[in-house]
Amino acid sequence: MYRYLWTNGPKEGLEFADYSFEEHFGKQIASYPPRAVMFDYIEGRVKKAGVRDWIRFNSVVRWVEYDDQAEDFTVTVHDMERDHVYKERFDHVIVASGHFSSPNVPEYPGFTHFYGRITHAHDFRDAREFSGQDVLIVGSSYSAEDIGSQCWKYGAKSVTSCYRTAPMGFNWPDNWDEKPALVRVEGKTAHFSDGTSKTVDAIILCTGYRHYFPFLPDDLRLKTANRLATADLYKGVVYVHNPRMFYLGMQDQWFTFNMFDAQAWYVRDIILGRIAVPADKQAMLADVAEREAREEADDDVKYAIKYQGDYVKELIAETDYPSFDVDGACAAFYEWKHHKAEDIMAFRNHCYRSVITGTMAPVHHTPWKDALDDSMEAYLRN
Amino acid sequence: MYRYLWTNGPKEGLEFADYSFEEHFGKQIASYPPRAVMFDYIEGRVKKAGVRDWIRFNSVVRWVEYDDQAEDFTVTVHDMERDHVYKERFDHVIVASGHFSSPNVPEYPGFTHFYGRITHAHDFRDAREFSGQDVLIVGSSYSAEDIGSQCWKYGAKSVTSCYRTAPMGFNWPDNWDEKPALVRVEGKTAHFSDGTSKTVDAIILCTGYRHYFPFLPDDLRLKTANRLATADLYKGVVYVHNPRMFYLGMQDQWFTFNMFDAQAWYVRDIILGRIAVPADKQAMLADVAEREAREEADDDVKYAIKYQGDYVKELIAETDYPSFDVDGACAAFYEWKHHKAEDIMAFRNHCYRSVITGTMAPVHHTPWKDALDDSMEAYLRN
Repeated sequence: MYRYLWTNGPKEGLEFADYSFEEHFGKQIASYPPRAVMFDYIEGRVKKAGVRDWIRFNSVVRWVEYDDQAEDFTVTVHDMERDHVYKERFDHVIVASGHFSSPNVPEYPGFTHFYGRITHAHDFRDAREFSGQDVLIVGSSYSAEDIGSQCWKYGAKSVTSCYRTAPMGFNWPDNWDEKPALVRVEGKTAHFSDGTSKTVDAIILCTGYRHYFPFLPDDLRLKTANRLATADLYKGVVYVHNPRMFYLGMQDQWFTFNMFDAQAWYVRDIILGRIAVPADKQAMLADVAEREAREEADDDVKYAIKYQGDYVKELIAETDYPSFDVDGACAAFYEWKHHKAEDIMAFRNHCYRSVITGTMAPVHHTPWKDALDDSMEAYLRN
Repeated sequence: MYRYLWTNGPKEGLEFADYSFEEHFGKQIASYPPRAVMFDYIEGRVKKAGVRDWIRFNSVVRWVEYDDQAEDFTVTVHDMERDHVYKERFDHVIVASGHFSSPNVPEYPGFTHFYGRITHAHDFRDAREFSGQDVLIVGSSYSAEDIGSQCWKYGAKSVTSCYRTAPMGFNWPDNWDEKPALVRVEGKTAHFSDGTSKTVDAIILCTGYRHYFPFLPDDLRLKTANRLATADLYKGVVYVHNPRMFYLGMQDQWFTFNMFDAQAWYVRDIILGRIAVPADKQAMLADVAEREAREEADDDVKYAIKYQGDYVKELIAETDYPSFDVDGACAAFYEWKHHKAEDIMAFRNHCYRSVITGTMAPVHHTPWKDALDDSMEAYLRN
């Protein structure tokens, strides 16, 4: 999480069903908490559940292999504190390492001789580093939108963003220019596919991430595009080529924490034998195919949000994860989309109703663009 | 290799004994070639030897294990082009992955709230990114000296470097200030252990690297300090805990290419059975202990250079690596040290005699501080 990052969707869409923001903070809070507030919330839930004792910190999984004979996994772990490598056998492996951390880094002609800084969103830390500068943002998805907005908020001289397929199309501030595809860089000048150019001090590649599992052999390694219907995952979590192996959160995401929760509950229940997985691989592949076809049936945003909401409902219905108003969460996402279209630099000033406690979030005390201090103290002062 | 990097020692100390700079370039060249020139030279030698066909590019070694029964190694490799993981057995493994690539990153109080850029030498790319800025260099070894000098050369407003144990002590330019240890950072102000402070725009951590082998289990993984007498390596190359395993270039280095060569020749001859390794582990450990004791006997720089020169001679004497005037190379290093002490921003203007061809290098056409173009074309124009 880079500095000053606030959630880029309303917290009402991600609230834990069994641990509300009100329970954690003792009061309802505004809808787009900055990173310190989110961290505190997540940590509070971890503490309440007592799961911290079950986490081996500073332990890097180097390799995982499946033993057909023993029907179990051997996991090779590097304990970095003791600088000691050991192996341990497990009946199941759940990969929950995320898919927004290994950067996809394109190369453009002229990059090798660009005189300014080139960095990927992954390494972006503090927007103030770019204050007074002309910044080029390559990309048109969430990182591009948010990192560009951060730079704008913290005093970049100008922001230029560029897209390959379609513009983000928001009502950008006067010093934000949206261009078509970057073609090449010469000196400090970026050239775009429409023949225009712009001299810039820094280039930030908001060009996405890769599903990357350097600790997995071919027979266990998920290969998928970043989409709602992830390849090869029955019910979005069971690896069809080895159903003792599970993946959490590998989907492209509208829903996050609550979907991860529902997936975790679901996987737990499979492991505990409460939920049956088809013994037939073809049946699992059919489930995947059905999800893919349904995702591809419509490219409307509301359709996609509802699609993932339905998926969350589907998992919750089969587990004891506390039921919550998923449609209400979807509605918050629809409103959010609307508020962004209205004013991309002001959407975080809106508030939404919690679907867990029914309480309306307060309007934040300061408009997002003027709230330069992202500390928990500053945010919770109401 | 970051942009504008020139060798920081004379090329006469690292010239391949079987492939001179004159052979490659068709003429003698100046003594401190920039990266493009060095790359071309190395590539020329690779082509001449025809070894390129034996390299599997884009192949990441994920894991290595030794099989006591079969007395061989199983190497797990990820072919990134085909996204395919496979295993292959080998009688020997030679680790030549270097030890200046995994950064050692310290944390200082206030780093989490520093408003400027913090980067490690590992991620430093282009000194022009820091032109006009006040730069803090943390560290006092080669990276600190060279990256600070690059920033100075390409227009940093000021350079401040700081040390924990001893200053570099060169005659720095007026806008370079050497301070004792960094204590903390507040806002953009760095505070030092002598009570002084300096407001800076960027912090570059020249704090070294770690020997890091994420692909090796405990029984094969070298653990050593960065020193001339590397731990656990008989003759500086044979891993005493498994003599079928070798490490090249794991020493701290005065000599580089020619020492790596001598090591490679030596290891090749062990594998071919031309050189015998003691069957007794104690005998190998005694060799390591003797090297350690000899290294520790004196902390003089000339002693250290000669120590490593003697090591190179020792290896060459037992192989058919072309004998060369190692003492002459040592002499170039002594001169280099002297030239640095004389003028740290001008030492690269000196030239030295090749110990391979006996030719004196020409004086470079432009003083280093004024030679802003680091291309091969610019450097070779004489």
